[in-house]
Amino acid sequence: MKKVKVHSPGTVANLVCGFDILGMALSEPYDVMEVTLLDEPNVIIHNKDNFDLPTEPEKNVAGVVLLSVMERMNNKVGFEITIEKHIKPGSGIGSSAASAAGAAVAANHLLGNIFSADDVVQFAMNGEKLASGVKHADNIAPCIFGGISLVRSIHPLDIVSIAVPDLFVTVVHPQIEVRTADARQILRQQVLLKDAIKQWGNIAGLIAGFMKNDLDLIGRSLEDVIIEPVRSILIPGFDEVKKKCKDAGALGGGISGSGPSIFMFSKEEKTAKSVEAVMKDVYNRIGVEYNTYVTTINKKGVEIL
Amino acid sequence: MKKVKVHSPGTVANLVCGFDILGMALSEPYDVMEVTLLDEPNVIIHNKDNFDLPTEPEKNVAGVVLLSVMERMNNKVGFEITIEKHIKPGSGIGSSAASAAGAAVAANHLLGNIFSADDVVQFAMNGEKLASGVKHADNIAPCIFGGISLVRSIHPLDIVSIAVPDLFVTVVHPQIEVRTADARQILRQQVLLKDAIKQWGNIAGLIAGFMKNDLDLIGRSLEDVIIEPVRSILIPGFDEVKKKCKDAGALGGGISGSGPSIFMFSKEEKTAKSVEAVMKDVYNRIGVEYNTYVTTINKKGVEIL
Repeated sequence: MKKVKVHSPGTVANLVCGFDILGMALSEPYDVMEVTLLDEPNVIIHNKDNFDLPTEPEKNVAGVVLLSVMERMNNKVGFEITIEKHIKPGSGIGSSAASAAGAAVAANHLLGNIFSADDVVQFAMNGEKLASGVKHADNIAPCIFGGISLVRSIHPLDIVSIAVPDLFVTVVHPQIEVRTADARQILRQQVLLKDAIKQWGNIAGLIAGFMKNDLDLIGRSLEDVIIEPVRSILIPGFDEVKKKCKDAGALGGGISGSGPSIFMFSKEEKTAKSVEAVMKDVYNRIGVEYNTYVTTINKKGVEIL
Repeated sequence: MKKVKVHSPGTVANLVCGFDILGMALSEPYDVMEVTLLDEPNVIIHNKDNFDLPTEPEKNVAGVVLLSVMERMNNKVGFEITIEKHIKPGSGIGSSAASAAGAAVAANHLLGNIFSADDVVQFAMNGEKLASGVKHADNIAPCIFGGISLVRSIHPLDIVSIAVPDLFVTVVHPQIEVRTADARQILRQQVLLKDAIKQWGNIAGLIAGFMKNDLDLIGRSLEDVIIEPVRSILIPGFDEVKKKCKDAGALGGGISGSGPSIFMFSKEEKTAKSVEAVMKDVYNRIGVEYNTYVTTINKKGVEIL
């Protein structure tokens, strides 16, 4: 029986001024999945964690992905999957994308990599559709390919890999619930042209900064004048965390995905650790439970072990 | 008496999806200027062309730039300038920027380059202010530095040089008048968030394409869903020119500056020439006078001869 084990990383989507188009993979946390190829059309799910996620394939993010692969194979195969999640659902660091992308890459591997990279992304997007109602790829793409991914367009799919700068990443997950649907609904449908111009100046600067490994340009470009001012209202402590992290030396950062996690870039590991201490201080004082990670940008994406 | 002669190139600002932030310098056309350093506080202007531009320094784009340098020098010097313009005023390919940037670079050269690059841009922006009422730098920056310039921010000034791809440029200047002020007024102050997202996906793709010299990515990213649909209404033949140029093999392009010139990128010189033929056909049929240029991206900027 063919079997594969994968690590599937957490991801930060909506990278500051790159709302809906830019995401990056994290070295930590990551989910662990074991997938076995079956010779009958069935998807069997086992959870090896305490998140109590549904095991009916139609209701499970990895499950719907595997069902879509199974269907494409004319129901001549099936999959059994054991999922050990470390990325908390609802954290805003790509928990559903890790499940979806890990399952899609593992299934393709078991089938001898018969599907193209774009196909694998499409399979995985079925999982995002189940999780958030929207087929988006700004978590899926960096999760699968690693590094920083630009999703220039979804129809047709156009994913561009962006050079990875030498940066450390600090993430805090304050354990409050922000529903992706709420975070989406709160956004205005119209924005000021002058703000949009500022935003595309910043995203252009950010991409140039990544490609040149110009860390100061990255820092100057890490500004979101459109989404963050609205969505940060849903995250207690956001303004204080951001200000104090920058005072502690962080280059900049913002909301991870649709929140509630917040991430910050730093040039040095020791700064990234001071930034973590700042985050802990704020949430200890506010009295909200949290997790933190001091990590780097993951260049591998979903890893076959 | 210290004297210098410079070539100051035409430029394309508002580079498709890079409205207000992205410009590039052209190898042709360019203005020729001769500037002499005087030891008395005076600015004397001679025109060596048929455009009948004002010679009072306060009303002349190069003049106000030289006045601002003179003031900064505590009125201890002056300048005499002879201007031979080849870039038609009102063409949309940076005629005023060429006057302003050429004068600023020449003056700084005559003074032993005592001013920083940012200072020179600031001096030149006084000329843009006179010409269009707005201090913008997306023509000035590429004119001075050559290549492709991102103006991420004006306050504070943040100019980023972007790698130059291997492309040919075809420009057509249909000789109708589009006033910059009108072109600005026609724009809506609010835009749809979904359009803004598309635009910043495209500008991110365009910058990545330039940095990677990925000509097809550049082509896919050359799409402006916000400004062009509105402004192109002011340019007779625009839609037809664009469609037929792409049919003839152009990668893509759009309005140069605020028009009426239209530019197109091509991978090969022979395609750039076919594109020129298409442009000529359209305007011959419509019955509008025009100029065309088949050229490249100028990497030098203002050149001291």
